[in-house]
Amino acid sequence: MAVMVDWWGGRDLRPMLPKIFFEHFGGTSLVAERGDELLGFLVGFLCPDHPGEAYVHFAGVHPSFRRAGLARDLYERFFALARAQGRTVVRCVTSPVNKGSIAFHMGIGFVMLPGDEEVDGLPVTVDHGPHGDHVVRFELRLDAEKVP
Amino acid sequence: MAVMVDWWGGRDLRPMLPKIFFEHFGGTSLVAERGDELLGFLVGFLCPDHPGEAYVHFAGVHPSFRRAGLARDLYERFFALARAQGRTVVRCVTSPVNKGSIAFHMGIGFVMLPGDEEVDGLPVTVDHGPHGDHVVRFELRLDAEKVP
Repeated sequence: MAVMVDWWGGRDLRPMLPKIFFEHFGGTSLVAERGDELLGFLVGFLCPDHPGEAYVHFAGVHPSFRRAGLARDLYERFFALARAQGRTVVRCVTSPVNKGSIAFHMGIGFVMLPGDEEVDGLPVTVDHGPHGDHVVRFELRLDAEKVP
Repeated sequence: MAVMVDWWGGRDLRPMLPKIFFEHFGGTSLVAERGDELLGFLVGFLCPDHPGEAYVHFAGVHPSFRRAGLARDLYERFFALARAQGRTVVRCVTSPVNKGSIAFHMGIGFVMLPGDEEVDGLPVTVDHGPHGDHVVRFELRLDAEKVP
């Protein structure tokens, strides 16, 4: 909670991480630390409604530790964990304003899913919620993923 | 989303229900409808980190249809569903300001769990999040529940 506004460049996304994610989805979530310092985290879950699917709800990296492969490493550990539980696809969404996030997901092998409309050339879906925000939806097939 | 502010007496709790709950936890969530009209709903899940536990994240009933047993019915269906999946305890939290919710949970057999401090004579735990809100934590043991 203490780092989120800073890590997201002033956007306050804290309400998207209610405490239940930490209390109940710890087994599919990851943190990267150096000593006591939090460098990154990923909160995900195995989708109960969709037996083949895993979902990354939230992931972030300390601004001073970006572009060093840390987020990719968190995702790859999540992919391995999901694959070990029989999952074949990982999905996530991001905001169309978050160009860094979009580039990151494309860079590690996610593809954009078709949307309901287009914003800035991106396929977007209208999310529900107070502001009717748009999201870009991503998917990565674990069975097609190239293992180095 | 359209009913929430009204059903919660002006409190805007919409950010607590991101779309992922409806996309991924439908199998453990319930709606009560009359024709096309939504009368009540319950969003819950089986806790992946705690194999014996099920959690009610959110539940609400249309203000004009309260005090008729609808919420109790939604909870009892959730208890049955959780029990059928081998769960032995159901937990949930509510705000200490929501006296109706506290009375409801006590009335259907939940007990309050100890908190970190006390507010208005209630045991409360500090939740994380933007406002550091207090919550009252409830538990109901399915194995101890009296079946009519």
